[in-house]
Amino acid sequence: MGDIRATLRAQAIETPSWAYGNSGTRFKVFAQRGVPRDPYEKLADAAQVHAFTGVAPTVALHIPWDRVDDYADLARHASEVGVRIGAINSNVFQDDDYRLGSVTNPDPAVRRKALDHLLACVDVMDATGSDTLKLWFSDGTNYPGQDDIRSRQDRLAEALSAVYERLGEGQRFLLEYKLFEPAFYVTDVPDWGTAYAHCLRLGDKAQVVVDTGHHAPGTNIEFIVAFLLREGKLGGFDFNSRFYADDDLMVGAADPFQLFRIMYEVIRGGALSGRHGGPEQGVAFMLDQCHNIEPKIPGQIRSVMNIQEATAKALRVDGDALAAAQAEGDVLAANAVLMDAYNTDVRPLLAELRQEMGLDPDPMAAYARSGYFEKIAAERVGGTQAGWGA
Amino acid sequence: MGDIRATLRAQAIETPSWAYGNSGTRFKVFAQRGVPRDPYEKLADAAQVHAFTGVAPTVALHIPWDRVDDYADLARHASEVGVRIGAINSNVFQDDDYRLGSVTNPDPAVRRKALDHLLACVDVMDATGSDTLKLWFSDGTNYPGQDDIRSRQDRLAEALSAVYERLGEGQRFLLEYKLFEPAFYVTDVPDWGTAYAHCLRLGDKAQVVVDTGHHAPGTNIEFIVAFLLREGKLGGFDFNSRFYADDDLMVGAADPFQLFRIMYEVIRGGALSGRHGGPEQGVAFMLDQCHNIEPKIPGQIRSVMNIQEATAKALRVDGDALAAAQAEGDVLAANAVLMDAYNTDVRPLLAELRQEMGLDPDPMAAYARSGYFEKIAAERVGGTQAGWGA
Amino acid sequence: MGDIRATLRAQAIETPSWAYGNSGTRFKVFAQRGVPRDPYEKLADAAQVHAFTGVAPTVALHIPWDRVDDYADLARHASEVGVRIGAINSNVFQDDDYRLGSVTNPDPAVRRKALDHLLACVDVMDATGSDTLKLWFSDGTNYPGQDDIRSRQDRLAEALSAVYERLGEGQRFLLEYKLFEPAFYVTDVPDWGTAYAHCLRLGDKAQVVVDTGHHAPGTNIEFIVAFLLREGKLGGFDFNSRFYADDDLMVGAADPFQLFRIMYEVIRGGALSGRHGGPEQGVAFMLDQCHNIEPKIPGQIRSVMNIQEATAKALRVDGDALAAAQAEGDVLAANAVLMDAYNTDVRPLLAELRQEMGLDPDPMAAYARSGYFEKIAAERVGGTQAGWGA
Amino acid sequence: MGDIRATLRAQAIETPSWAYGNSGTRFKVFAQRGVPRDPYEKLADAAQVHAFTGVAPTVALHIPWDRVDDYADLARHASEVGVRIGAINSNVFQDDDYRLGSVTNPDPAVRRKALDHLLACVDVMDATGSDTLKLWFSDGTNYPGQDDIRSRQDRLAEALSAVYERLGEGQRFLLEYKLFEPAFYVTDVPDWGTAYAHCLRLGDKAQVVVDTGHHAPGTNIEFIVAFLLREGKLGGFDFNSRFYADDDLMVGAADPFQLFRIMYEVIRGGALSGRHGGPEQGVAFMLDQCHNIEPKIPGQIRSVMNIQEATAKALRVDGDALAAAQAEGDVLAANAVLMDAYNTDVRPLLAELRQEMGLDPDPMAAYARSGYFEKIAAERVGGTQAGWGA
Repeated sequence: MGDIRATLRAQAIETPSWAYGNSGTRFKVFAQRGVPRDPYEKLADAAQVHAFTGVAPTVALHIPWDRVDDYADLARHASEVGVRIGAINSNVFQDDDYRLGSVTNPDPAVRRKALDHLLACVDVMDATGSDTLKLWFSDGTNYPGQDDIRSRQDRLAEALSAVYERLGEGQRFLLEYKLFEPAFYVTDVPDWGTAYAHCLRLGDKAQVVVDTGHHAPGTNIEFIVAFLLREGKLGGFDFNSRFYADDDLMVGAADPFQLFRIMYEVIRGGALSGRHGGPEQGVAFMLDQCHNIEPKIPGQIRSVMNIQEATAKALRVDGDALAAAQAEGDVLAANAVLMDAYNTDVRPLLAELRQEMGLDPDPMAAYARSGYFEKIAAERVGGTQAGWGA
Repeated sequence: MGDIRATLRAQAIETPSWAYGNSGTRFKVFAQRGVPRDPYEKLADAAQVHAFTGVAPTVALHIPWDRVDDYADLARHASEVGVRIGAINSNVFQDDDYRLGSVTNPDPAVRRKALDHLLACVDVMDATGSDTLKLWFSDGTNYPGQDDIRSRQDRLAEALSAVYERLGEGQRFLLEYKLFEPAFYVTDVPDWGTAYAHCLRLGDKAQVVVDTGHHAPGTNIEFIVAFLLREGKLGGFDFNSRFYADDDLMVGAADPFQLFRIMYEVIRGGALSGRHGGPEQGVAFMLDQCHNIEPKIPGQIRSVMNIQEATAKALRVDGDALAAAQAEGDVLAANAVLMDAYNTDVRPLLAELRQEMGLDPDPMAAYARSGYFEKIAAERVGGTQAGWGA
Repeated sequence: MGDIRATLRAQAIETPSWAYGNSGTRFKVFAQRGVPRDPYEKLADAAQVHAFTGVAPTVALHIPWDRVDDYADLARHASEVGVRIGAINSNVFQDDDYRLGSVTNPDPAVRRKALDHLLACVDVMDATGSDTLKLWFSDGTNYPGQDDIRSRQDRLAEALSAVYERLGEGQRFLLEYKLFEPAFYVTDVPDWGTAYAHCLRLGDKAQVVVDTGHHAPGTNIEFIVAFLLREGKLGGFDFNSRFYADDDLMVGAADPFQLFRIMYEVIRGGALSGRHGGPEQGVAFMLDQCHNIEPKIPGQIRSVMNIQEATAKALRVDGDALAAAQAEGDVLAANAVLMDAYNTDVRPLLAELRQEMGLDPDPMAAYARSGYFEKIAAERVGGTQAGWGA
Repeated sequence: MGDIRATLRAQAIETPSWAYGNSGTRFKVFAQRGVPRDPYEKLADAAQVHAFTGVAPTVALHIPWDRVDDYADLARHASEVGVRIGAINSNVFQDDDYRLGSVTNPDPAVRRKALDHLLACVDVMDATGSDTLKLWFSDGTNYPGQDDIRSRQDRLAEALSAVYERLGEGQRFLLEYKLFEPAFYVTDVPDWGTAYAHCLRLGDKAQVVVDTGHHAPGTNIEFIVAFLLREGKLGGFDFNSRFYADDDLMVGAADPFQLFRIMYEVIRGGALSGRHGGPEQGVAFMLDQCHNIEPKIPGQIRSVMNIQEATAKALRVDGDALAAAQAEGDVLAANAVLMDAYNTDVRPLLAELRQEMGLDPDPMAAYARSGYFEKIAAERVGGTQAGWGA
């Protein structure tokens, strides 16, 4: 149990700057009070999540949503409020030029523009000290025949190669895949196999990132995790949960047992230690969610706690008993070993852990009592609230 | 064949005013040139679709997107450009008050506000002469426990009952169902069974509308069509097509064979004659699509043509041969009768039909040649383009 | 907590006779040692499940798999080993005549044969004292055009009506729905809406049974449960779990959180008391699973325990706190109330409960120690093992 | 058009020996009259398909279902009736030892047994002159924890490597993937990415085979085809169609537009020429279907014709017009080019082609008139009908 506590204490979960801004569906964005107006305020909010959980030390940025003139100053600000800059997320889906794609667009000029943006994101990495570039392409087509599937792969490969060449020492990119949305017929990177194949050709600095909401119904995500870890190609997670499509609900909200199984495979693959603290970057554990109707900061705190609980349960799996039952082919016994760990209530353990770390055992209640929300709701009046379009 | 032509000539497909405005995904709305700035311009565009196809005589309105001071004047304008007002679509999903639902909201004041809007839509029906109110509720919850599933049904029933009571002679409402989006855990009207049960309790003026993109993967939509027709509860269609979720692509673009099977069941159920021309209102054939990346008017023309082609093929099914093969249990022969009709190229037939109707045999080319797009692109400068939020 | 214990003690879960026989996929049935050779041996096995759990007092029969000459004798045997006969399950899918359907077959002679079987099942109810007939129809078609969708509904309605008329005082039938398999294009009762509509027309003695593995991907099953309870039309459950299609795994194995949500709605709808003990029959909680690779009796014990655990958690939901949070529209608080109950480890409570009932606190271990398996494996040699085809 | 005809004439579609035997679902196998009793009779039936279509010259065998003492004699028989032996299909899923897997089984003795079978299949290749081994593994687990996901991949890799080493000059294996069934939690080769990664490590003699029914809902199969062709890793197809899961219906029956899109990508990737006639083996076009309720030989003829029709339509796509519209980003025009080809009725062209080849223009009618069915129904009495278990 001492080992489990040490492991849980060292866990590092990254929250995304955009989680603190407004978000919604294509039907409506419900604005909330107290939402940040700029990247500095986003970092301040993220710092609250770390302050109350102790395991959310880094914050992912999104360019251009978090564009500032002086990234070094932003990084300094992060440090001052108690966090660090994590992954840099590129955005090549919100310019009018990207209607038919970015790096896979049939128009070479648009492709060039998109690539320039990606390269500029590496500049931001240099400026902020970030070691990870996250690439998500909304590229695809809506109608059969609209564009040539294979040519788009050629264009994608060309762009990825150019970005790869630009990466410096200790830098990497993570390639994200997604079944669909916003493209509705072909998506150019629709599944892990596509992302994997491109990364494999490029080399060690290219890895796959698994967004837990980006799969076809029925996909066994923990299998993908286990497979990519075996291949040395799992670079990170975008955590969230879903009942239907890319719902972007709080991680663990829709299927906590699935989250547990994923974390079990992470541990089984020796990848829990994460990316901070060694020559190898390891797996980045990032949140990527939309708090459309619930408050942002508590939504992030709850999500971090959900991952902690799943991790704690997965750490409690009795490995020897499991291996023995598996070796004997005792289906029910092997399943029972896993379920015993899952059915354990680990909340007391985590409460104790927080107290050892000098934190309140109940982060949600502690945040609610802190008055932070009342403060930002009062102060952040006027200006333009941050959101996906800003 | 004479009968088929007469039937095809009498077909009536309704286009929605919002198809002519901008639309997109939660990631981006790509604005297009020449997009209408007000309901009058939308009707003008819709009139083009009718002018070139001859089978799109009515236009659905959406309140408040099409709110005007003088609906009688709007109806007059419609008549002047050659179309009529069709269904009135309510909107109880875009006010900040509706964050947790409209008619199923836990707050009675919000429910009252939503109901008032629905009743006001009946006023618009009275003012425009529309006979059909379309009710779509985005109501639902995102998280287990967020609200009480059963209480929300009680609230829904209460609101539907109040609207039903308000309907006048010759008026009806159509209740739409949708699996998910924007609600991601529970949707209060998620499937045809729920819509059917509510309509059944209310009476003949309440019917179910089938949006072809609103089903779970694997759902057999033509079964639902056949079943609702047998029960006398199919009120209409919202046509579009999808590969994944509610993609809102052009009808017939994703699975033209499915569209053919649906139209076959419509004909089998005696419902093709549609809603215009008798004491019974019949089935309304409406489009409900998003032309996110393709031009709007041609997108609608193409969609109308796709329905025409599916209808013409379905009309060509040899009913006697089919019945004989089915009665004998000859699986391959029965399937072959259906496939023979589907595999027939009906475009020459439809081209002839258009010429008989005094239309150009190729509506897409004729529209392109007409100069209408160049005209609106030049004229419609300034103002605020219509879209989902406007 | 006293209430919770009393409720859990009174819970009654029905196991199916066929769970004790061999089962498999279309690729292979892996025979197991000790499998029963006749209905008497099946009941003996089922009695073990009740002996070790205390909450599985009834056993569903399947005709003709459990056909005997003297049903009264079989019922006596059940009583002697400590169980009772539960629902009677009809089988109109394994005769060569049913290749194109049973009660919906285009051939009236086949329909008559199928109906006769259903009526004979009511005779078995009379002979055994069973109050519930479970109707599952594999009827459907594999190819578009193969048969007429609507005519098949007419035939179905006719057969259901005839069975309904035959039911005696205190008897009912439960109509099961299933998305697909073994029919691959149209299934004649594919969803709850279809089953509901047919039952509604017939009256109170016809109710819907929810098999938890029979839905399209993404279907919210607890919504259906809540809706049918509100309508007074939920007759029972066929419990099992699935990752993909109708996998028939042990209930709670694939998504324990879903099972918890279902049991929460059962309790919310006042339906936990089940069908034994009053003038109204209530909801039947039945297992319907295939232990293809795991041993049968332990598989059933584990399944019963999984339902108990989900029930115990659902009973622990703090209703007042939940209602308060819902009324306030506090999304995170309401969700947290539910999750607090789910995250509680109820196994100690259930262990205590078993001891109060004079049972071993660990049914799996107790059964393993009992030597029953060794006994049947030694004794049941020769003869034909029971299975789906026997 | 001359080119199109030449291409269509050269097309080669392989039918599987098991399509001529009985098949069914886990619920029932409906036996048919005239079904073969041994591999010789299967080849005779397959020869009929070739005789009436002219494009089905090879037949896949399945070991042990087609086990004979003298494979050279079987190959001679094939030649005499007018066909050749195609791919050899292994079977490591029907022995009792494979309950928990074959090559991934935790028990090394079982793994060895499975590998020996695979190696024996290469012996059959040597004896029959077959150049292609098709590997499908039903291996997987039903319950979380049942076995170690990663270790199973290690075992799989080891077995594949041993088979690869055994392959002779001009021989290859095709690795099949499948989302689920008969395994219901983890399948060891669940998707194309897994099959691709294993094949890539091994070399050119290992390729991926795409079964069109083996994907998650919403998967874009033509994307996978295009991607694998770009990588040089598409080895063949197992054609069939499905509405839900692995329904194994006749190819083109469920979604003929999808089949057309797949054939378009095959042509786009330069892979239509197939595997017969050059140093490179090319893509194998194989059927893999179950005619559960329809007659076998006509079912195969119809399937072959469906592929021909899809191919003919795909060949008619105006490549120049398509490329021009794609380059201009004209979404509707590009889509229209594809749809124009799809909407063309190619049946007259194929009828002419058959006449040029000395065949009846209507293979279905010609077979029906031939009296072959009446002959086998009369002759094949007694003995054991071939099926999946025999």
